[in-house]
Amino acid sequence: MEVESRYVAVRHHVEGLPSEDDFEVKAARVRWWPESGEVLVRNLYLSVDPYQLNRMKRRSASHLAVDGIVPGERIDAYGAGEVVASACEEYKEGDVVAGVLGWEDYTLFRPSPGVLMSKLAASDDLPLSHHLSALGERRRRRRRAPRHARMQFLLICLSVSVAPGGDRWIEHVAGTSGMTAYAGLYEVGRPEAGEKVFVSAASGSVGSLVGQFAKLAGCYVVGCAGTNAKVDLLKNKLGFDDAFNYKDEPDMKSALKRYFPDGIDIYFDNVGGETLEAALANMNTYGRVALCGVISEYTDAGHRAVPDLLEVIYKRITIRGFFAWDFLTRFAEFTGVISDWIRQGKVQVIEDISDGLESVPSAFAALFSGDNIGKKMVKLA
Amino acid sequence: MEVESRYVAVRHHVEGLPSEDDFEVKAARVRWWPESGEVLVRNLYLSVDPYQLNRMKRRSASHLAVDGIVPGERIDAYGAGEVVASACEEYKEGDVVAGVLGWEDYTLFRPSPGVLMSKLAASDDLPLSHHLSALGERRRRRRRAPRHARMQFLLICLSVSVAPGGDRWIEHVAGTSGMTAYAGLYEVGRPEAGEKVFVSAASGSVGSLVGQFAKLAGCYVVGCAGTNAKVDLLKNKLGFDDAFNYKDEPDMKSALKRYFPDGIDIYFDNVGGETLEAALANMNTYGRVALCGVISEYTDAGHRAVPDLLEVIYKRITIRGFFAWDFLTRFAEFTGVISDWIRQGKVQVIEDISDGLESVPSAFAALFSGDNIGKKMVKLA
Repeated sequence: MEVESRYVAVRHHVEGLPSEDDFEVKAARVRWWPESGEVLVRNLYLSVDPYQLNRMKRRSASHLAVDGIVPGERIDAYGAGEVVASACEEYKEGDVVAGVLGWEDYTLFRPSPGVLMSKLAASDDLPLSHHLSALGERRRRRRRAPRHARMQFLLICLSVSVAPGGDRWIEHVAGTSGMTAYAGLYEVGRPEAGEKVFVSAASGSVGSLVGQFAKLAGCYVVGCAGTNAKVDLLKNKLGFDDAFNYKDEPDMKSALKRYFPDGIDIYFDNVGGETLEAALANMNTYGRVALCGVISEYTDAGHRAVPDLLEVIYKRITIRGFFAWDFLTRFAEFTGVISDWIRQGKVQVIEDISDGLESVPSAFAALFSGDNIGKKMVKLA
Repeated sequence: MEVESRYVAVRHHVEGLPSEDDFEVKAARVRWWPESGEVLVRNLYLSVDPYQLNRMKRRSASHLAVDGIVPGERIDAYGAGEVVASACEEYKEGDVVAGVLGWEDYTLFRPSPGVLMSKLAASDDLPLSHHLSALGERRRRRRRAPRHARMQFLLICLSVSVAPGGDRWIEHVAGTSGMTAYAGLYEVGRPEAGEKVFVSAASGSVGSLVGQFAKLAGCYVVGCAGTNAKVDLLKNKLGFDDAFNYKDEPDMKSALKRYFPDGIDIYFDNVGGETLEAALANMNTYGRVALCGVISEYTDAGHRAVPDLLEVIYKRITIRGFFAWDFLTRFAEFTGVISDWIRQGKVQVIEDISDGLESVPSAFAALFSGDNIGKKMVKLA
């Protein structure tokens, strides 16, 4: 069986703000045959995430944890799809899977401990797209780690443990925006009822969930975003106590002083830069910063936060970088809790879905111009 | 009874590098009488610490936790002395005390829950000066906190708890270099045997103890300091695995790469600035930064570290500011452990003692020119 399968590639390493022109859609054919041992998936939804930009750079701290992307080659990405052919017991034609697929029409994979793929239950009552946004699949597999633990994974991995024999293994797990929001807020932020939480990029895929989770934890929550429509969404649909358009605030420090007269206890940081500096200046003693993303630095490495470390010391602040999958032992709990919240209407899942593989480049570029609201993904025809 | 008691004051707020000229020794008389309820202490040793510079500034994040110093007025400081007159049951003439005294010949205090003072046991076999350096006194007292919890304390304070009646109280405790080193290394750094520890300002009062404690925890320890004599001390007397003079290293990042080919797991930061940036660049996944001091920023607020937050995220690094007294529940253990280590010769206490109250200004200024080795203090005649 052979199918036409276009894929999206970068033409070259991308160092600054990405544009559609940095990408091309390339034609290819994918061949599957019964003896291949492989599974052929027709992709239905593909995730479009800012962190991929770091993989597209020639050099990036990102490459310490996630492989760089090679110009001209296919790009792996989280997604959901339908099995159209399988040479493997575990998967049947018609099964719906979520896991590491690619920015392409069809993905071929060989089930192995190193491959992240979950079969969704037929009884699953939530929209398939939610498996790329609020929900997350869990799959724990073990394989011997390569020497320097640089691995081919994405929203995946990386709790290194020592196996009984003394060998080092790496446990893989897939995470999504929901898992990132949950782990970052609850495990890094550790909110208590009544605490004050500030979320930047609050209408984004992670931020929109963090704010709602923090409200469910009994916190006072203020978010910032870059358009008035986003601010409206935060205040009127997502239940944030308050929200503001950071573009209307020439002085972020005094803006935060207005929105947090009693100080900030937890800052969920998606942007870095001056916003982090201003949050530290307004933070209370024993404040926590959950450092999830520094999107202001993704497109401009020279644009960095210059935190006042005296404040960090005298206020005994903790700044912690994290990945969702550092908390994999709690993933089963996360998925259950988040699913229930969605079913009960306590959490709104905001998704921003573009149509067709050819829209991946514009969808990706839009992430950095602030055009998306909620989780950005592409639905294939 | 009335005694002549000179005191050291600042002539004005001190904003940059301090010099002797910023200080003056002023004459005063202190009067004690039996009905005063007060205790008169002749000061024997006075602690000289870099953090006092932040108190001397007109504005500083320091003032969030510790009162600023008023030009012309006496300056409270940790010290040890001998009771020469007492109107209080608890203290007798001849008792030796350690606690919050002042940069002055005699200190008068009225025992109260708000005053930090410990009577040393007559059986104490360690040098009195050690109570200002490696050891620490513990005194837990309760008093009603002022409204905004800004308090007149130094190496003191600040675990806010809610008393049974719902009132807020503040528990005071005194900390010293030993407590800071112990708490920062063990509670913030959480070393495991075999981990790699980097200490800046490693020949200083805190750094010299951190390195020795880390060796006792089974770690590989490298320190940096600013003179070859200090480097010798670290390597040949204090048992560091290696040490280097940072002034000989134009590129700190590559220097650390040489000294830590397997990366840094814990960075005990006393200096901030480029050293912190370089340590982050050389840090391993799940690295911890115990942020104890940023002396490079004390004298120049414009001189700030610009950490690469992408590294902090992708390496899941935790940066945490701390005070020793955040860990007051473990102080009794700390004091016991450190005393034993000193008696057993496992820990060397390095002290740099100047003579006479009039040497306080030069001793203080020397902290910022890198002239001191170990704990800086002044012994009064």
